[in-house]
Amino acid sequence: MYNLLKGKKGIIFGALDSNSIAWKVAERAHEEGAVFVLTNAPIAMRMGEINELAKKTNSQVIPADATSMEDLENLVEKSLEILGGKIDFVLHSIGMSVNVRKGLHYTNSNYEFTAKGWDVSALSFHRVMNVLYNKKAMNEWGSIVALSYMAAQRVFPDYNDMADNKAYLESVARSFGYFFGRDYKVRVNTISQSPTPTTAGTGVKGFGGFLAYAEKMSPLGNATALECADYTITLFSDLTKKVTLQNLFHDGGFSNMGISDVIMENFNKE
Amino acid sequence: MYNLLKGKKGIIFGALDSNSIAWKVAERAHEEGAVFVLTNAPIAMRMGEINELAKKTNSQVIPADATSMEDLENLVEKSLEILGGKIDFVLHSIGMSVNVRKGLHYTNSNYEFTAKGWDVSALSFHRVMNVLYNKKAMNEWGSIVALSYMAAQRVFPDYNDMADNKAYLESVARSFGYFFGRDYKVRVNTISQSPTPTTAGTGVKGFGGFLAYAEKMSPLGNATALECADYTITLFSDLTKKVTLQNLFHDGGFSNMGISDVIMENFNKE
Amino acid sequence: MYNLLKGKKGIIFGALDSNSIAWKVAERAHEEGAVFVLTNAPIAMRMGEINELAKKTNSQVIPADATSMEDLENLVEKSLEILGGKIDFVLHSIGMSVNVRKGLHYTNSNYEFTAKGWDVSALSFHRVMNVLYNKKAMNEWGSIVALSYMAAQRVFPDYNDMADNKAYLESVARSFGYFFGRDYKVRVNTISQSPTPTTAGTGVKGFGGFLAYAEKMSPLGNATALECADYTITLFSDLTKKVTLQNLFHDGGFSNMGISDVIMENFNKE
Amino acid sequence: MYNLLKGKKGIIFGALDSNSIAWKVAERAHEEGAVFVLTNAPIAMRMGEINELAKKTNSQVIPADATSMEDLENLVEKSLEILGGKIDFVLHSIGMSVNVRKGLHYTNSNYEFTAKGWDVSALSFHRVMNVLYNKKAMNEWGSIVALSYMAAQRVFPDYNDMADNKAYLESVARSFGYFFGRDYKVRVNTISQSPTPTTAGTGVKGFGGFLAYAEKMSPLGNATALECADYTITLFSDLTKKVTLQNLFHDGGFSNMGISDVIMENFNKE
Repeated sequence: MYNLLKGKKGIIFGALDSNSIAWKVAERAHEEGAVFVLTNAPIAMRMGEINELAKKTNSQVIPADATSMEDLENLVEKSLEILGGKIDFVLHSIGMSVNVRKGLHYTNSNYEFTAKGWDVSALSFHRVMNVLYNKKAMNEWGSIVALSYMAAQRVFPDYNDMADNKAYLESVARSFGYFFGRDYKVRVNTISQSPTPTTAGTGVKGFGGFLAYAEKMSPLGNATALECADYTITLFSDLTKKVTLQNLFHDGGFSNMGISDVIMENFNKE
Repeated sequence: MYNLLKGKKGIIFGALDSNSIAWKVAERAHEEGAVFVLTNAPIAMRMGEINELAKKTNSQVIPADATSMEDLENLVEKSLEILGGKIDFVLHSIGMSVNVRKGLHYTNSNYEFTAKGWDVSALSFHRVMNVLYNKKAMNEWGSIVALSYMAAQRVFPDYNDMADNKAYLESVARSFGYFFGRDYKVRVNTISQSPTPTTAGTGVKGFGGFLAYAEKMSPLGNATALECADYTITLFSDLTKKVTLQNLFHDGGFSNMGISDVIMENFNKE
Repeated sequence: MYNLLKGKKGIIFGALDSNSIAWKVAERAHEEGAVFVLTNAPIAMRMGEINELAKKTNSQVIPADATSMEDLENLVEKSLEILGGKIDFVLHSIGMSVNVRKGLHYTNSNYEFTAKGWDVSALSFHRVMNVLYNKKAMNEWGSIVALSYMAAQRVFPDYNDMADNKAYLESVARSFGYFFGRDYKVRVNTISQSPTPTTAGTGVKGFGGFLAYAEKMSPLGNATALECADYTITLFSDLTKKVTLQNLFHDGGFSNMGISDVIMENFNKE
Repeated sequence: MYNLLKGKKGIIFGALDSNSIAWKVAERAHEEGAVFVLTNAPIAMRMGEINELAKKTNSQVIPADATSMEDLENLVEKSLEILGGKIDFVLHSIGMSVNVRKGLHYTNSNYEFTAKGWDVSALSFHRVMNVLYNKKAMNEWGSIVALSYMAAQRVFPDYNDMADNKAYLESVARSFGYFFGRDYKVRVNTISQSPTPTTAGTGVKGFGGFLAYAEKMSPLGNATALECADYTITLFSDLTKKVTLQNLFHDGGFSNMGISDVIMENFNKE
């Protein structure tokens, strides 16, 4: 709509289906003039409809397991070829807890599951930046964004070990962001998004109730996946060049609420 | 450049001269298709060159003392007339400490000066929003931004009572932002900007040294006034509709640095 | 009980009646071996029962309006005489919003009321420290504590302009705390306490409901006035000498909760 | 000195030698009337002098690898026997980065090393609490403390992947702390301590320079290991029962400093 990303080249991780935030980011980036490569874990691609998105956005798809350095190196090398130059933006939208999937309570974790979830959800962000950094694959003033959630700062009991994974992810953004900024003028930030009814999100226990709660707590209501995509576009654009090492709440105000009038009224009715 | 503010109407407080962040915001808002009213305190206008900016951006100037409800009511009423409709964006870029001007140390404040500085720098933001809110002068999904500084969170000894004023200002953004969001879908945020060599800034004791220090601490270097204007444009645009009650650091990463390699090397040389 | 404050000398502001946190602090400080002066605004003393507390804790009472430099200077001078030496600890427990008392909504403030509340609730802390600092009235490794509330960080709609006052108060703690630490090795902190059913607190609109809400959100329940006094004692003791410039949440965990199971269940019943 | 922990029972992890914070905590806890079990990794015990400490504090030592559930279960079971009842306090002071030891830069991590460091430094805290929680081994109003560092929030380039490990650790404190509070009235907090010249700390590249820098940035100077032990005692005592889910800075004020006068003067000399 605005040509905000005209001529920019990117890699987008994590578009599973049309409910995914990454899917919306791809659509919006395409509208704003960007070209990009889509990627997802091979297993997620079998379940998803990423080829439809690729067609729609005139993109190529390169499968990559974000816990495999070999896959990530292949992804970045191929992307540089396909896009014909260095990368301007990267979206990391990857998260998965085996403990959650298996229904294990946080106080009763299986630590192999915990390690797997940490590797997929948090360490993968370090791996992705490692490959981009060491291959000198990013253009100056490029922008890297990962999606996070406020459970990194505050307790949401059902979020389980994903809370700790997001805390690690946000720390990686700061730690690696320092070196990426200092050496290549690349910025690294996380967006802490409202609960969003993606295919992954809606699978979490009690998600519907929590979504309604967050809606009533937030003065502007929950942020949608499309609104998150819009916001992500601004962070990829040239208008936010000096924003780095930040965790940016995109949540209709939830993060700075103590209590809203509506939630208080509901509570008083009880 | 991108038509991000096409058709949007605004009020911009605080453009003193071409070094002002508000000046740059006005220029960039004009380029992005906005129309707006410029305003400043009558006394600041006598010293400034705001008429030049008005001409350049095809704007009108309405003087207003931001501590006077009468002036602010007049400003908002006239703006609605001039712009032919409700307001989409407001920039509050106002700050002044009499204690700093008079060279009084923080531990030796004159409390009349403190009260005056608080009224001008912090309470004025409440007054501005009060008038906009009660006159129903903002469009839905409008955006209000005030400029702040990290002294609101951390100690910068020379910043004096402006630190406390900025803490109050940021609190007002949250407090009023809740009601503005709930009732009119208007978002309210503050930008916590790098030290910037504006005409006001450079007057602060030891400013030059501190600017150099911040430059070396920040992985991307200090953010300039123009870069701040670019960032402000994104917050006025339709791409950030669900960002509210936030204090957003625009500082090349300074806010999340503990120490940089360059600062550490400098220190070790001592 | 533990002799934690044996031989320490203090000034305690704000003991109105036996529900006051300051009252409990005085009782506990007495038990821990401290001697101190009690003070409150002349008007609050007429309403209160401070003389009973003075008798019980073997203290003298010196009335002082915390917005009057003359009163504060008199207070500090007399305290040094009465206590026979410099001060080791000070508690600032003062807060009052005229807008709240008069029932004015935050979006409809009377700015004379706002200024009065700010002077009493926030600037008074600067005034107190100003007098202590310039009279060199504090012993090395002394401790100054002010009571705050989390509305300084997050929105609690009924807290009105006290939210902004607490944000200013916490900033003053940091700003003055730097100079007090650097020059006299005195630490300055704020305690951000659970909502507490003091005589002042229970007057706030909807307080009872909110108290119940906070109780159910906090994994350990709300902190009582007596528990707050216990915690304050640790901050006055020699065991916390290097804690300074901090805002310390004493709230059963509320501040780091996103949602609790109990609140979520209540919400889902709706 | 004060009998603050009279009759309390504890487990202290991580006393390597007399420079260790855990060593000082053990000495101080003993002075305050506590009885406790000491534990450390078998390999650390071979290098350390823990038996000397055990003798001095009349304690028993039970080796345990904090990444082994079997070892931790054995530790907790034996501790309950030895101490003759449930546990009142636990100190987790464990941290190690293989990447740091091997001299690998953060941008060039070996991910097996990263995983090992994460397991030892961060996940171990979850494991410890898991065993304590599921064995119902803690008394009501017990207190669990882990030692952390501000690199969890801000960038200290040489801290390497320990920054991310500390972010994860602090998140585990909140996540597990919620359930421990809700179900057993146990509080869980982290102390974010000044850089401390322990045997581990002094091994980090550039540690001496950084220690001097932190000393000059902090209005009260760096906190020592002994001061940290004093502070930890307050968190184990009955005076802080409602403090939970917090990360508490014990750092002479460093965490809330933007710049100090001394650091600025040093910088200007350059």
